Amino acid sequence: MAKLEGKVLVAQGGGPTAVINQSFVGAVLESRKFPQVTRVYGALHGVRGIVDEDLIDLTEATTHNLEAVAQTPSSGLLSTRDKPDIEYCRNIFRVCQAHDVRYFFYIGGNDSADTCRIVNEESDKAGYELRVIHIPKTIDNDLKVTDHCPGYGSAAKFVAQAFAGVNLDNRAIPGVYIGIVMGRHAGFLTAAASLARKYPDDGPHLIYVPERPVTKQQFLKDVKAAYAKYGRCIVAASEGIVDPKGKAIVSQFTGGEKDAHGNVQLSGTGALGDLLASWVKAETNIKRVRADTLGYLQRSFLGCVSEVDQFEAREVGEKAAQYAIWHSQDGSVAIRRIGDYAVEYFLAKLKDVARESVEMPARFLNKAGNGVTDAFIRYAQPLIGDLPVMARIAAPSVKKVLKK
Amino acid sequence: MAKLEGKVLVAQGGGPTAVINQSFVGAVLESRKFPQVTRVYGALHGVRGIVDEDLIDLTEATTHNLEAVAQTPSSGLLSTRDKPDIEYCRNIFRVCQAHDVRYFFYIGGNDSADTCRIVNEESDKAGYELRVIHIPKTIDNDLKVTDHCPGYGSAAKFVAQAFAGVNLDNRAIPGVYIGIVMGRHAGFLTAAASLARKYPDDGPHLIYVPERPVTKQQFLKDVKAAYAKYGRCIVAASEGIVDPKGKAIVSQFTGGEKDAHGNVQLSGTGALGDLLASWVKAETNIKRVRADTLGYLQRSFLGCVSEVDQFEAREVGEKAAQYAIWHSQDGSVAIRRIGDYAVEYFLAKLKDVARESVEMPARFLNKAGNGVTDAFIRYAQPLIGDLPVMARIAAPSVKKVLKK
Repeated sequence: MAKLEGKVLVAQGGGPTAVINQSFVGAVLESRKFPQVTRVYGALHGVRGIVDEDLIDLTEATTHNLEAVAQTPSSGLLSTRDKPDIEYCRNIFRVCQAHDVRYFFYIGGNDSADTCRIVNEESDKAGYELRVIHIPKTIDNDLKVTDHCPGYGSAAKFVAQAFAGVNLDNRAIPGVYIGIVMGRHAGFLTAAASLARKYPDDGPHLIYVPERPVTKQQFLKDVKAAYAKYGRCIVAASEGIVDPKGKAIVSQFTGGEKDAHGNVQLSGTGALGDLLASWVKAETNIKRVRADTLGYLQRSFLGCVSEVDQFEAREVGEKAAQYAIWHSQDGSVAIRRIGDYAVEYFLAKLKDVARESVEMPARFLNKAGNGVTDAFIRYAQPLIGDLPVMARIAAPSVKKVLKK
Repeated sequence: MAKLEGKVLVAQGGGPTAVINQSFVGAVLESRKFPQVTRVYGALHGVRGIVDEDLIDLTEATTHNLEAVAQTPSSGLLSTRDKPDIEYCRNIFRVCQAHDVRYFFYIGGNDSADTCRIVNEESDKAGYELRVIHIPKTIDNDLKVTDHCPGYGSAAKFVAQAFAGVNLDNRAIPGVYIGIVMGRHAGFLTAAASLARKYPDDGPHLIYVPERPVTKQQFLKDVKAAYAKYGRCIVAASEGIVDPKGKAIVSQFTGGEKDAHGNVQLSGTGALGDLLASWVKAETNIKRVRADTLGYLQRSFLGCVSEVDQFEAREVGEKAAQYAIWHSQDGSVAIRRIGDYAVEYFLAKLKDVARESVEMPARFLNKAGNGVTDAFIRYAQPLIGDLPVMARIAAPSVKKVLKK
């Protein structure tokens, strides 16, 4: 097969992650090794930068600079929330053609995979050889086909460490604590709040995810029971939890600001946490009730990265370049778990990853709908890796002298 | 001077920090070296555990266990919000006397220093030799006399890393971001949001602290100006910011739940962030406005510690034991800055640290009341130490082909 000579174009879309630049740098550095690659371009602000021709030339970016960017959270090429329709994708294709781009790598979630699919179809129709690879990333961990998604492990580690600290804090000064975690439809990230539990009474004691509807009545019953048992209660809840009718619980509180995709705003507001806290304050005698919304720190905090996630994010970027440039393939890079813990990479079809997303499988959630199973812990633990040391004092009680 | 033989009692009070256990373990391990120390006790839940005689015997806790606890955030001995009056302090003293405690070390803020002062006076009146040392800790950094407070550096590092990530996230998907930081009266922790700025347009672009009252009008004017200049705007605001009449701005929104000290609840609610965001949404045309409240993660997050803070917290604990047991002194351990960066420790009088707290000096705040000065950066930077790598891509723009 003749070598397809031309340029590489890389872009990043959707919400940033802590390791999305590992994928970007992996794709760039691997691409630069191939003699048939004439230039490696990056698009600023995702597909928006392609149609606007806001491109930068990464061929001469220094390796040191790229390696430093790889360690930096959030999209180094900047991002976009644009969700291209067919006409938008045709414009992407036209820019590729005009710049002699022959390899297009788009790092993103299921919407980005769909953009890849359409651009790929348009180039096929036009008879222009353009290899298109979708490189997976999402803290939601909700892509089809792949075992898990780069970006999830680091966000999950942040959530685990946040709840580990909150658990220690709440032990020191007891009360009810409610932490709201990102996740509109999939509860994977919220479930990660369980991963740093060490002692049997460690929180979170209750975990609510969008996959399991919850009523106010059941929520309060659960909180009261946990508080009675532990003298305190820590709750982890997804921003996207719904009532039995499927209606977002936060919509009982907010006006329901909608984004470009027509979705109700869930992040960047403390509304759901404050709503759940108000329920507990109104319906129980518990005095200390606090709610935090973990917010954007979950996906961007500087200095909290899972090593496994970091390496895998790098590898899916490298693999994208190899599949496209060596093997002339189109598709979405996916991860297959082949050991405990080991993975291999393969190329899924773009149409199999595009558009739709997955939720947590039933085997990861307990029957009561307020916690996770050991199967989930076994699945997610290797993705976040080791956690910092944490221990309780082991010392005997002193016999009372005054009060006997 | 005859050696004063008896027991050591250690307790932790108030809000936990990431390094409060370093001080605790420093005091315990140093105390265990002295032959005149018959036992080293710890009180559970601070002064509450003393009056209830909920004590544990740390004499036989293993060094490995204690060192693991030292690395664990939040009070290992658990904490209390109790603010003892004279009668309460007399009970503390009675328990010390009953258990032959001759050295009492209390790790906490200005309220804890006041407790130490009163207990010390009561023991003097009773003619019972009891050495009392206050060991400083607070993420608010608002204790008198000392240059800075153990616990602040780690919380400041968390805040700096949080805003560094948020800044990268906000660059990728621009808008207005408002982050609410702990701090009722002192803005030191909020000001730390400035410490990870690297490039000239990095956020936070606006910083509001309780020391500088702010009006809705001025706030909106500032946000609009920053947004016009940068195409985005990141705001760091203390939970305790006030209007020109000194009224907490959050009280415009919440019912004003009060704690045991009669203070309005500021933490554990997203109210202030949501209020400020609603102002921007209502009064500007900016579409993407997000608010996060950093919440309890600031003082308890597992795995974010300043090394300098960690070592200093350890040393103030060790010094407490030395001042009391070797030198038979009472007081509050304080830090003096003697170089850039180096410190030495000294013993302040309990009455000079008790009760009152300090605010940020004027030289740390800009004239407009919406930012910090270089003097603050110089002061605070050494306390948080090195930050993780973060870099922008350095690559030239590509010439447009279609759009010229």
